[in-house]
Amino acid sequence: MGLREVESSLPPGFRFYPTDDELVSHYLYNKVANKRASQGTMVEVDLHAREPWELPDAAKLGANEWYFFSFRDRKYATGSRTNRATMAGYWKATGKDRAVRSRRTCEISGMRKTLVFYRGRAPSGAKTNWVMHEFRLEAAFSA
Amino acid sequence: MGLREVESSLPPGFRFYPTDDELVSHYLYNKVANKRASQGTMVEVDLHAREPWELPDAAKLGANEWYFFSFRDRKYATGSRTNRATMAGYWKATGKDRAVRSRRTCEISGMRKTLVFYRGRAPSGAKTNWVMHEFRLEAAFSA
Repeated sequence: MGLREVESSLPPGFRFYPTDDELVSHYLYNKVANKRASQGTMVEVDLHAREPWELPDAAKLGANEWYFFSFRDRKYATGSRTNRATMAGYWKATGKDRAVRSRRTCEISGMRKTLVFYRGRAPSGAKTNWVMHEFRLEAAFSA
Repeated sequence: MGLREVESSLPPGFRFYPTDDELVSHYLYNKVANKRASQGTMVEVDLHAREPWELPDAAKLGANEWYFFSFRDRKYATGSRTNRATMAGYWKATGKDRAVRSRRTCEISGMRKTLVFYRGRAPSGAKTNWVMHEFRLEAAFSA
């Protein structure tokens, strides 16, 4: 069942309010390791085709937060830089990536990158208040 | 079904994380208006018989927060002052009571009082880090 349907069937006060480690060790891990188990839980969103303000309708879960799977698009077929542009602007990383640790083992299960949306084209875009956290599995977990 | 049982049956990431208004307009209102509907949802705790550090086991729900019903004990049979003492100490109000508003109508549905636990006896107790929010219905809603 999709997480949105689970949420809407619950008594008042219950929400999707995951820890970073639950997002990485459960949802992202299952998405990568076992497509069937994760099917339909979280919607998949093409971040290049959606502006930030279109995401709430696509993926609303929890209170004022939105959760979805996406994929990384390379800027150049041969490079490792990620393309995070939309029609109206682009997502730009801010601060340092943060380690996500498993509550049980304290091992690093993934990394969290924080991105801010800028309207326009780099480097002259205008900063907005849209913030996104991008989670990725650590190598040891993505095998 | 009790809220703890609901919580433990949910997929990872779902928690009891209610708004103040959900606590007042749904849980507290049902508790007062219709005992049967609220039966078993939240445990009832006698705050005079329990020290703060005993509450997690009695009422754990959500992340690091505990929710329960209690009753007001008058200090004197003829007065309106509330007795909030335990064996080890007492709960003391701090700051101003805050209005809780219904998200739909914006009307005040209840009030929230914040209390801090002091070890020992008033007025010479030692402040601790235990904090409690006490919700009550507003008169219009408790009819």
